[in-house]
Amino acid sequence: MVKRWLVGDPLKTAQFADERLSKRIALAVFSSDALSSVAYATEEILLVLMLSGTAAVSFSVPISFAIVLLLTILTFSYRQIIFEYPTGGGAYTVAKSNLGSSAGLTAAAALIIDYILTVAVSTAAGIAAVTSAIPSLFPYREALCIIAIVLVVMVNLRGVRESGRIFAAPTYVFIASFLLMIVVGLAQSYGARAQPLASAPLPETAEALGVFLILRAFASGCTALTGIEVISNGVSAFKKPEPHNAAVTMVAMALILALLFVGISVLAFHLGVLPKADETVVSQIARATFGEGVLYFLVQGATMAILLLAVNSAFAGFPRLASILARDGYMPHQMTRMGDRLVFSNGIIILGGFSCVLILLFRGDTHALIPLYAVGVFLSFTLSHAGMVKRWLTKKGIGWRHKLAINSVGALATATATVIIASTKFMHGAWIVIVLMPLLIAMFLQIHSHYVAASEQVALARDARPPRPRRSLTLIPISGVNSAVVRAVDYARNQGGVVRAVLVDMDPEETAVVETRWAQWGCGVPLVVLPPAQRSVSRTLTSYIEDHLKKDADCWITVVIPEILPARWWHNALHNHRALLLKAALLFKDRVVLTDIPFHLIR
Amino acid sequence: MVKRWLVGDPLKTAQFADERLSKRIALAVFSSDALSSVAYATEEILLVLMLSGTAAVSFSVPISFAIVLLLTILTFSYRQIIFEYPTGGGAYTVAKSNLGSSAGLTAAAALIIDYILTVAVSTAAGIAAVTSAIPSLFPYREALCIIAIVLVVMVNLRGVRESGRIFAAPTYVFIASFLLMIVVGLAQSYGARAQPLASAPLPETAEALGVFLILRAFASGCTALTGIEVISNGVSAFKKPEPHNAAVTMVAMALILALLFVGISVLAFHLGVLPKADETVVSQIARATFGEGVLYFLVQGATMAILLLAVNSAFAGFPRLASILARDGYMPHQMTRMGDRLVFSNGIIILGGFSCVLILLFRGDTHALIPLYAVGVFLSFTLSHAGMVKRWLTKKGIGWRHKLAINSVGALATATATVIIASTKFMHGAWIVIVLMPLLIAMFLQIHSHYVAASEQVALARDARPPRPRRSLTLIPISGVNSAVVRAVDYARNQGGVVRAVLVDMDPEETAVVETRWAQWGCGVPLVVLPPAQRSVSRTLTSYIEDHLKKDADCWITVVIPEILPARWWHNALHNHRALLLKAALLFKDRVVLTDIPFHLIR
Repeated sequence: MVKRWLVGDPLKTAQFADERLSKRIALAVFSSDALSSVAYATEEILLVLMLSGTAAVSFSVPISFAIVLLLTILTFSYRQIIFEYPTGGGAYTVAKSNLGSSAGLTAAAALIIDYILTVAVSTAAGIAAVTSAIPSLFPYREALCIIAIVLVVMVNLRGVRESGRIFAAPTYVFIASFLLMIVVGLAQSYGARAQPLASAPLPETAEALGVFLILRAFASGCTALTGIEVISNGVSAFKKPEPHNAAVTMVAMALILALLFVGISVLAFHLGVLPKADETVVSQIARATFGEGVLYFLVQGATMAILLLAVNSAFAGFPRLASILARDGYMPHQMTRMGDRLVFSNGIIILGGFSCVLILLFRGDTHALIPLYAVGVFLSFTLSHAGMVKRWLTKKGIGWRHKLAINSVGALATATATVIIASTKFMHGAWIVIVLMPLLIAMFLQIHSHYVAASEQVALARDARPPRPRRSLTLIPISGVNSAVVRAVDYARNQGGVVRAVLVDMDPEETAVVETRWAQWGCGVPLVVLPPAQRSVSRTLTSYIEDHLKKDADCWITVVIPEILPARWWHNALHNHRALLLKAALLFKDRVVLTDIPFHLIR
Repeated sequence: MVKRWLVGDPLKTAQFADERLSKRIALAVFSSDALSSVAYATEEILLVLMLSGTAAVSFSVPISFAIVLLLTILTFSYRQIIFEYPTGGGAYTVAKSNLGSSAGLTAAAALIIDYILTVAVSTAAGIAAVTSAIPSLFPYREALCIIAIVLVVMVNLRGVRESGRIFAAPTYVFIASFLLMIVVGLAQSYGARAQPLASAPLPETAEALGVFLILRAFASGCTALTGIEVISNGVSAFKKPEPHNAAVTMVAMALILALLFVGISVLAFHLGVLPKADETVVSQIARATFGEGVLYFLVQGATMAILLLAVNSAFAGFPRLASILARDGYMPHQMTRMGDRLVFSNGIIILGGFSCVLILLFRGDTHALIPLYAVGVFLSFTLSHAGMVKRWLTKKGIGWRHKLAINSVGALATATATVIIASTKFMHGAWIVIVLMPLLIAMFLQIHSHYVAASEQVALARDARPPRPRRSLTLIPISGVNSAVVRAVDYARNQGGVVRAVLVDMDPEETAVVETRWAQWGCGVPLVVLPPAQRSVSRTLTSYIEDHLKKDADCWITVVIPEILPARWWHNALHNHRALLLKAALLFKDRVVLTDIPFHLIR
């Protein structure tokens, strides 16, 4: 009931029709992850540079340009993936098909970790946009993050069609409001109308600005590029011709991202904005540019909205990846199962759970989460592009040297960025990801080897039918004579083979009573009375059954258990403890079959 | 394996022989609960009186004498219970047999709460004795309390014989060391050799010493009497003549208790000892009397030991009471089941769990727990003695007027004490007990009425055999053809009736493959292919079964489920999800029988 209300009615399979997206809608659907990182990337660069004093802050602009250069390289490299994998070229697919399953699983592990981090980071940043505008909410940011994640989980459990619809407006409002802010801000700045903000006092023990710090700032800024791969995963969702439309959309997205990111970085520099604990850089810029009017709140609202859309996109991507991994036997099969609403419910719930854990561990603080982020993304970028390099070398084809050159530059650039990110942020949290990845890969391999072993064991030989027991002995363990027992006896007599009731003689007086009543109600089924072993009914029965299994190797033993099913759930605690113990003891015996005969109480 | 090592090998029933106790041993076994309260009762009186300033502290001595008077009345009153109930006269038994089941259940609820509190209070006080002697352990007192409870739980799960043995020595060492301390301390005090200790500064807003505060101090001191009922519960454990020996032991115990309690109160007064947060009153007295030598540590060690024995006695009493209640149908039947070591394991584990919760909620602080304590004990005292009053009025017999008078005084005195305790400590925590008791009673009644209803429903009519289905349809739900399925088919064909395999057509291609393979492996069992309902295998099967049940009211439907049993527990997460869903959906259908055919993986 509650599930229906929260999640909606089950959908028919037919409703799982393809929903092809126009370029305009696709840009909105697929770019929220990439564009939303503009909300925090500049701030993360400034936070690192500030360690070395105010003067160092001016490096944020060249660093931003370096990141845009990387973005350009990646965009060209990804265009080729789009044309080569028109059904969707995720890092797992590209790496696996070109570099083998180890590379594929490495990419998968990296992606899984980064989906979880995307949710945590984007939620934290989205709530930071809210608490910057409404400072009185700042103390409740962890709770707000959890609420936001729960809402997104519910939206996603309702299903993909409805969540697709809500993308377009917020994304375009975000783009428009940020462009407006950049234009107005820069105009004010060059017209010298804006007052530079008062700088926050700097730490006295400022670090000297060295190469390491600049690289660390670059590494933090690289979070701006997270999410640019989303379009290449979703090529098949575009209208025809899919690869062409996807490639055009990819370029458009990269342009917008470059514009917004560089715009914010330059504006932050001109306005002299520095990070604060309780207000984001974007909020400070918006406040300085627009004052505290409607436009300011529009910027903050749009920022929050696009960050929640980025969260949402992880909820689309993670379950899809998990289901692909499950189909390949690297994750539990139930990840492939769609829920009532035609979404991969298990994946959605797992992603929601883990990201809530991250939010609580890192107290909903974007800056604390950033060092973990991007390592995985860039590793998966590297594996994708390296896979393409291998592909051209193997496959060749028309113009392969040109294509090889583009993807080689992409692979080299992302590999370099990965090394920079992993090494400069290692101590600040990247080590967690680097420890987790091999563990995840080991889990994939364990699961896979189990499924392989299991399918070998259940496989049927070409001709030989497995030998089977021919005889059948049915046992009914009883401790008294009542309607539930009589029902079980009736059922057992209806089946073939020999039937016997068994009673463990725990109390001779009680046993005598049962024997007398059995004469009336037993219908001629013989009653075997067993002397108790170790004062335990279940041990006595188990050893009796074991003896029989040993004596007769060609016999099924069916244990028919009269089970009382109460009308209310809590009544279960009051019944069937013996039956449960017995079942637990017998579950692992070959040739022993457990059959519950239900007797339903109605009150 | 772990269980064996922790708990020991299973015992034979024959080992459950009666162990009859001499008076000397019985005093040790049964008096730890009562005597151990000397360790904290005086301190609790002083804590209340201190609220009104140092002068008020002198009231502790008359209050102690008033409590000893109450003890005397109770001892005489209990002697009569001992002679009337030679097989054991617990408050539940006495109240139930004389005043009816409501009074019995009230007493039972009170006792259950107080067993849990005995464990919590005694453990906290025992650990306080340790941390008084070794102050560096004070910050870890909660953890120490939990460790102590876990140890006692393990000792008790090992069984009653071994735990009986360890009682005598610590109890007599406790009695001897306290008597020595009192004698030496008083001698020093009257010889004016002892220095009065420096008094702690008193709160500036001291309350005026009124009747309420004196009554509250009296109520706190009444905790000294908790546990005096233990002998009357255990009469049957004494050597013959049981009632006589029990009565003599009861009087001896009361004398020792009176001596120690008044001794400690008088000594505390003479030495000017006042309660401190981190050192107990007894520890201060011992330190002042003996200095920090061997005798001091002996007193602290003996205090801790007897308090842990008191904890242990609750672990004997609670499971016994729970099993009696379960036998009467007021608690779940499994409380009557003895474990491998012939103890009521469930009761022991439950008591341990709840008392750990109390320790954590009240941070291992004796003073915080005391207001909850004693309400239940005194309510059960009152019900016992009131029961005896009723008994004499009904039964009469030789000298009944005299006996009536004694028990009437006992009932009146305990009733008065109960009212004083409940009202003066109400705001400080007694309300929790007063709220919990009706809830517990309601639970008893709910459980009882369910057992009555269940036994009515399973009862067999004198002659009429319940009607039974005659036909049998066996269904084997499959999603593919493998060894596990073939095994299930072989089993089903061995049983009587019609057999059919059913396949839900989720994927037409896959279905075609299964149909081809079925032709080879199906052994002529017909395969029914069902169109999917709501994209769900389990819903499709459920509605197919429901249709059949409706069509044929005289038919059992046996659902034979091929179940893969993995070799390692965590592999279970990778299998059988469909089977589980199906079982959950079918469990509550009448005439549907679930049969698992195990297929054991070996790796």
